[in-house]
Amino acid sequence: MNNPPPATVGMTLDQVDTPALLIDLDALERNMKLMQDRMDRAGVRLRPHAKTHKCAPIARQQIALGAVGICCQKVSEAEALALAGIADIMITNQVVGTKKVERLVALTRRTKLSVCVDDAENVYELGTAAKKLDIELDVMVEIDVGAQRCGVMPGMDAVDLVRLIANDEHLNFIGLQAYQGAAQHIRKFNDRREAIERATQLTRDTVNTLAKHGYTCRVVAGGGTGTHLFESTSGVYNEVQAGSYIFMDADYGRNLNQAGEYDREFENSLFILTSVMSRTRQALAVVDAGLKSMSFESGLPDVYAHPGCRYAAASDEHGRLEVRIDSSIQLGDKLKLIPSHCDPTVNLHDWFVCIRGDLVEAVWPVTARGAIW
Amino acid sequence: MNNPPPATVGMTLDQVDTPALLIDLDALERNMKLMQDRMDRAGVRLRPHAKTHKCAPIARQQIALGAVGICCQKVSEAEALALAGIADIMITNQVVGTKKVERLVALTRRTKLSVCVDDAENVYELGTAAKKLDIELDVMVEIDVGAQRCGVMPGMDAVDLVRLIANDEHLNFIGLQAYQGAAQHIRKFNDRREAIERATQLTRDTVNTLAKHGYTCRVVAGGGTGTHLFESTSGVYNEVQAGSYIFMDADYGRNLNQAGEYDREFENSLFILTSVMSRTRQALAVVDAGLKSMSFESGLPDVYAHPGCRYAAASDEHGRLEVRIDSSIQLGDKLKLIPSHCDPTVNLHDWFVCIRGDLVEAVWPVTARGAIW
Repeated sequence: MNNPPPATVGMTLDQVDTPALLIDLDALERNMKLMQDRMDRAGVRLRPHAKTHKCAPIARQQIALGAVGICCQKVSEAEALALAGIADIMITNQVVGTKKVERLVALTRRTKLSVCVDDAENVYELGTAAKKLDIELDVMVEIDVGAQRCGVMPGMDAVDLVRLIANDEHLNFIGLQAYQGAAQHIRKFNDRREAIERATQLTRDTVNTLAKHGYTCRVVAGGGTGTHLFESTSGVYNEVQAGSYIFMDADYGRNLNQAGEYDREFENSLFILTSVMSRTRQALAVVDAGLKSMSFESGLPDVYAHPGCRYAAASDEHGRLEVRIDSSIQLGDKLKLIPSHCDPTVNLHDWFVCIRGDLVEAVWPVTARGAIW
Repeated sequence: MNNPPPATVGMTLDQVDTPALLIDLDALERNMKLMQDRMDRAGVRLRPHAKTHKCAPIARQQIALGAVGICCQKVSEAEALALAGIADIMITNQVVGTKKVERLVALTRRTKLSVCVDDAENVYELGTAAKKLDIELDVMVEIDVGAQRCGVMPGMDAVDLVRLIANDEHLNFIGLQAYQGAAQHIRKFNDRREAIERATQLTRDTVNTLAKHGYTCRVVAGGGTGTHLFESTSGVYNEVQAGSYIFMDADYGRNLNQAGEYDREFENSLFILTSVMSRTRQALAVVDAGLKSMSFESGLPDVYAHPGCRYAAASDEHGRLEVRIDSSIQLGDKLKLIPSHCDPTVNLHDWFVCIRGDLVEAVWPVTARGAIW
């Protein structure tokens, strides 16, 4: 069930088998440095979300540049990356159910670990499992700051949950998870800023209410690629969890900056290399990358640097390109596509083919590919 | 990179870790028998498409029931299933590029194999590779019967391509691939029928034109789950390639039968088992299956047998359920979801958890998961 990599080190790009998941290393490295420098200047910690890349070599580079650790979304994702040597992981998610909680707690033997909660019973479940192994587990309380997904209401609901954690001798309350996921793709800069100002206010109030009750938030975490500017300069958040900034995608490419232009500060470093496999009509080219090579729920991919072609429709294993009459595209030609949504696209692949210029410099595993438990 | 299975044989359903890809074996077996019996009665061969399941144990069952072999979409998919012992595979797709063609041709040493073409250069490429290994490769000419994707135009374009194949001593022309993919999800029965009547007419004309030029089509192949009734009784098609009928999905569930009702002849046998992981508001339950557990380009999944809940939105690892006020759904509860599109959903998972009633009877690998080359 392990698929061989579609390239080996030293190949040129035209020798890479398709479809392949490509990283442009120069762009990746610029993106990583830009974000780390910005967080350093703002005086906040960067803990990049690894659900974007699921890749131990990338996590190691992020940490080498200054990140305090990584975020994961699932226990199995954290297990895979801990096994690969990542030593500080926050699970930005609830872990529910005896078996999963036991795996979570066991993982503290291998890596520094924290987890989010939003439910009293779940606190009890975590405490019981931690006691059984006689370990201490770091716990964040997630508050809902506008995403309307997980998290207790800010304010006294959070205090009640923190009290339960503080009273459990095997759990350490370390802070608040206050991620506003729904704000990441609000297109207009000022609208995004306002959404995070509201989230920040709710978070600040909760931090203060907790302080009045004697509880200190060492960590106040949140932020994503679309909004990290605002959380990092809020004076409230001290840890930013952006993930997609390393790759970007067509969906993030539709966000606007303060000047009202498409925000191109972070570059597209992630591509699907695809080949033309059928070319029977002038206005049509069929490529070999469809629903099993990219995620489409955020729209169609963009064709990179090929203005004569537009990706118009996908089926399982095919992409239909509309081709302008002046295009010279031929059977066998290779194109780069910019996926519409990087995270679920990466999860479809076993390997990153990492190129610098036209040369394959490395092939990295998608270490936690399919780790959904 | 291999994830452990979320269940072991003998477990009860409530012990299965989530998210998990479930098969209801009773429903699967009824679906397989219904289709095979129908094709037997119609006097046509069934060659189920394995891009749906990518699973050697299922392919073996289909063949044991009477299928002549399977279809694959990619060389790597065929390699994985041939390695697992499947002895007759048709690649219902173009294979382009030297390296891929060499792998394709090498695979004839392991399994009976055929492939589709729609381009003269590609015929030359296949013939050259077959000559190099001194083997004979069976070749189908794909004609475009309305899907406007791959395939040459019916009629003389097909004759020209068949002539090239017939003149290559290492290629055997065996017939026509005439799949009308765009008709599968036309909702109204009569509209679907008319689309296939048009496809059948184009196919019949091409078969006759080829006959006039001395070329016999041993195989006339096409058909899918939405239209198999029409191809199998057309008098022209003699091999049907339906795939999704074994599982069905929410999208196929929206097709109408002749009476204008939702067609429930084939049953949903494929589910995503998911757990409620957050339950902080009365009208909301968050489950642990999102974009990395199911494909969403064909819409949202249905919640199975739980009328108080509706899957309303997905993010990478979360599903947001709208919950009716009278619902008793609780944190930790497990639900079955019916994916909107079975093929790309299966491709996200490493394992099928096969249940009969409430008991795990088998755990099968998704043998060719991620085999996209």
